Amino acid sequence: MSAPLSRRQLIELIGRAAGSSAAYQIMCTLGLLPITSASAGPPQLPPNSGAGVDVLILGAGIAGMVAALELREAGYHCTILEARSRPGGRNWSLRSGDAVEEIGFKPQRVRWNRDPHMYFNPGPARIPHHHRGILDYCRKLDVPLEVMVNDNRNTYLQDDAAFAGEPQLARRVINDARGFVAELAAKAVNQSLLDEPLSPDDKQQVLHFVRQYGANKDRLLRFLQAFGALDQDFKYRGSERSGYSTPPGAGDQEGTLNDKVDFQQLLAADFWSNPILKMNYSEHYPQQATMLQPVGGMDKIGHAFARRLGSIVRYNAEVTEIRKTGSGVQVVWKDRRRNRTAVMSEASYVICTIPLSVLRNIKTNFSNEIQSAIRAPQYMPAGKLAFQAERRFWELDHQIYGGISWTNRDIGQIWYPSSGFHQRRGILVGGYILGQERGQRFAAKSPERRLKDALDDGERLHKNYAASLREGVAVAWSNIPFSAGGWADWNFGDAAHRQHYQALLKGDGPVFFCGEHMSHLRAWQEGAVQSAFLVIAQLAEHARQSKA
Amino acid sequence: MSAPLSRRQLIELIGRAAGSSAAYQIMCTLGLLPITSASAGPPQLPPNSGAGVDVLILGAGIAGMVAALELREAGYHCTILEARSRPGGRNWSLRSGDAVEEIGFKPQRVRWNRDPHMYFNPGPARIPHHHRGILDYCRKLDVPLEVMVNDNRNTYLQDDAAFAGEPQLARRVINDARGFVAELAAKAVNQSLLDEPLSPDDKQQVLHFVRQYGANKDRLLRFLQAFGALDQDFKYRGSERSGYSTPPGAGDQEGTLNDKVDFQQLLAADFWSNPILKMNYSEHYPQQATMLQPVGGMDKIGHAFARRLGSIVRYNAEVTEIRKTGSGVQVVWKDRRRNRTAVMSEASYVICTIPLSVLRNIKTNFSNEIQSAIRAPQYMPAGKLAFQAERRFWELDHQIYGGISWTNRDIGQIWYPSSGFHQRRGILVGGYILGQERGQRFAAKSPERRLKDALDDGERLHKNYAASLREGVAVAWSNIPFSAGGWADWNFGDAAHRQHYQALLKGDGPVFFCGEHMSHLRAWQEGAVQSAFLVIAQLAEHARQSKA
Repeated sequence: MSAPLSRRQLIELIGRAAGSSAAYQIMCTLGLLPITSASAGPPQLPPNSGAGVDVLILGAGIAGMVAALELREAGYHCTILEARSRPGGRNWSLRSGDAVEEIGFKPQRVRWNRDPHMYFNPGPARIPHHHRGILDYCRKLDVPLEVMVNDNRNTYLQDDAAFAGEPQLARRVINDARGFVAELAAKAVNQSLLDEPLSPDDKQQVLHFVRQYGANKDRLLRFLQAFGALDQDFKYRGSERSGYSTPPGAGDQEGTLNDKVDFQQLLAADFWSNPILKMNYSEHYPQQATMLQPVGGMDKIGHAFARRLGSIVRYNAEVTEIRKTGSGVQVVWKDRRRNRTAVMSEASYVICTIPLSVLRNIKTNFSNEIQSAIRAPQYMPAGKLAFQAERRFWELDHQIYGGISWTNRDIGQIWYPSSGFHQRRGILVGGYILGQERGQRFAAKSPERRLKDALDDGERLHKNYAASLREGVAVAWSNIPFSAGGWADWNFGDAAHRQHYQALLKGDGPVFFCGEHMSHLRAWQEGAVQSAFLVIAQLAEHARQSKA
Repeated sequence: MSAPLSRRQLIELIGRAAGSSAAYQIMCTLGLLPITSASAGPPQLPPNSGAGVDVLILGAGIAGMVAALELREAGYHCTILEARSRPGGRNWSLRSGDAVEEIGFKPQRVRWNRDPHMYFNPGPARIPHHHRGILDYCRKLDVPLEVMVNDNRNTYLQDDAAFAGEPQLARRVINDARGFVAELAAKAVNQSLLDEPLSPDDKQQVLHFVRQYGANKDRLLRFLQAFGALDQDFKYRGSERSGYSTPPGAGDQEGTLNDKVDFQQLLAADFWSNPILKMNYSEHYPQQATMLQPVGGMDKIGHAFARRLGSIVRYNAEVTEIRKTGSGVQVVWKDRRRNRTAVMSEASYVICTIPLSVLRNIKTNFSNEIQSAIRAPQYMPAGKLAFQAERRFWELDHQIYGGISWTNRDIGQIWYPSSGFHQRRGILVGGYILGQERGQRFAAKSPERRLKDALDDGERLHKNYAASLREGVAVAWSNIPFSAGGWADWNFGDAAHRQHYQALLKGDGPVFFCGEHMSHLRAWQEGAVQSAFLVIAQLAEHARQSKA
């Protein structure tokens, strides 16, 4: 866009000749509407530029509330319709007294101790340090943050098929693996260290590596030694990194190193089969330290937005129909509290943050292309469950302060709380269920059954696991009304998916689609924030064109 | 000790015949006194077993206060003589209004904003999750803990001699290194991937690795692929682990990966030259996540101990002489507030937690062996300094939440605070000076000069570093009265050192030596705690023998 003014003038001419919708279509076609959000912050809209423009926002989740906050700031008249009686959407925390309603099951009631750290985030539960959008709102809305321990080397990995099913300490698995890999690399560099004498070909190999890495062999070997804690012969014989069977202490107690884990067993285990989970997890960009969480529960963010927005959020308003008109959009919704149907709202624009899994069951007159797109992605039937622990056995017996243990059982993960250290009780996340198959299996079970099975799975990681746990709560997102799934499981490697996604990105006339499902940050709150930023810019440009 | 009773009876017989001191000497010689603290908790002393026994404890640091608390519980009559007007020793936090006095320099006065997160721990500043002794006291004494971010992949590494002196993002250095090492290892396993065709000898090498690692080659290669984020050809071409130049976002923004760091430069850099610092730091056992800190400052621990101990701590009591007598110990001390000299206290036992660097200048009648031992170890001239930041630029401009950046300049490290996220101001630790040479250079400078130089060094990591920093405070531990150094720098690889350490472990009759310097956990508060546990057991055994 080296000459934006002349292009703009061209579009304005088309707009005058053929109407703003035509101009907008052409802009989309020419790629002149923003479809990326390169800047981490909200678009800077001119003050009062939205005066006289009505926007209906469907959903008071993070995306909808970001859109409302920013558009209101620029003078737009915004109303949010929210089907639930609370803000936040999947941004949700459960505490004593709360109810969990799932389609097909009777409601669960949370019966926990009421201390401030006794909460459970069934939805998002962590904020990476690089998610600037959501972090900026935490700062602006005065939501205090604390560290969420995502990586803890004192947790466990367990696979029924390796190490006789015994849980293995993360620090041993992770650091012994480093050692093994470094030793192997050192063998490649310094083949003279092998048992066999150096052959002419070996010599050439050494030269090859040294050439390739452009450094002298000694320095490369010393690098590998430091990387993997190799001994002076560049062999890995175990290291302090993998911890001690008897720790260093006072007097003569020098400490005794843990034995090396059996590399054959490590190769057999599933600890590494997914490069972004389990033993390699904390190297994965979105999961790297520092990880943050709001003090007292993730829903502190949703509530802070809602407080700031005030009366423009209309709760218990379940959308039943969305109809484009010549001049804007009509939305039919039902007041769930009064069970009054067929309330009609009209606006120039709609920002629809309703998950596609829910939207596909709402009556609309969207284009066929959009209708197909809405039906396209599978939703992840993610699930989570939590228990009240009467005793923080993970701290008292295992010195585990926050972090995650992993198992190949259905629960997948156990999360130890990152707050309330040394308090008497705590909320333990007893499972985070991922994958289509596991998720569907989880959702099909009654909550009681899910909890019982989770206790059995947990027993593989901690002996007498169930003894101090009680009052479990299980959330299967695919059964949760107005969510119907964890997140859009777009497959961007699939050409049809890419096409559907592109269609939704352009919107349908005065209707814009917004939420984590309209981003490459799927399942993250940051995806919702960035999508809102993008849609705001699109809507503002459309409005500017319409006025012109 | 398969027959403890008969040995005990033997010792008692000797005691009756030749006196308790003789019995004690024989016990030491026979190795019957405890000299390790295998259990993480305090020794279980019989209730009231200390009745009628006076113990003088020199120093109200962590070691002294643990000893007093546990011995008092068993009925011992304990008094602590503390030279300072505050408890804690090196367990110390600075806040606005506090003064730092160093020998040879005029006092520094701390002038900071008074918010609860505006503190600086010049001494210990982290508690590893496996330091059970000190953590148990935090629980018992109701000292709230929070996470201390020790490992943050969004910090920087800087070396004047590599990458043109430009700071490198930790996530890139760490994860690209993993990739390089894994690729190298994969070459070793799968030499067919090399440019050169597979020679018969290469084939034998492959067989060798496969034999050695006892797994099929494919699985080993896939393990390396997951470990290092290698591509399908087992080459490292960069990865999401090393982050993005443009992050994934909304709409079409898929994100653009950072380029790989130049491995040649990485080899040239000092990022890995010490295997327990910089890029390999968070793999080092004592530094692994989870790391903890008391909410509001490390000295919350010292003060909690002191509150519990009450009036048995005598402040401003500077010990000037320690004299063994036939029946116990006399200690001469000076009331620093009243400047009254030559107060004499007597007790059956003394637990001396005074750092050896200070003790060597106090008059004693210790044995020659003990006198030599006290003079033996160098003390680490460690230093730290901190500034008040008017603007948390590390969060606002760099999304750094806690953690450490590293440089080869004298400051060594910059610590970003793990509390007060998103507050207006913060305390930035602008240097942690380590090593004999650097430490001595630091201690020799005036505080003003140290601060000025630290700002210059910090500029290498952050442009315009000094602009938002003010009111620095610099602490050179070797100049701090009653500490005279950071910690005992025992060289356990040195035979003379080992001998001196062993001598001190046995004590000198009724005098026991206690503190981090009497442990294999040097510089850690846990070393002080474990040393106290050990000395308590020794003293109790001695007292039991004496009574028998």
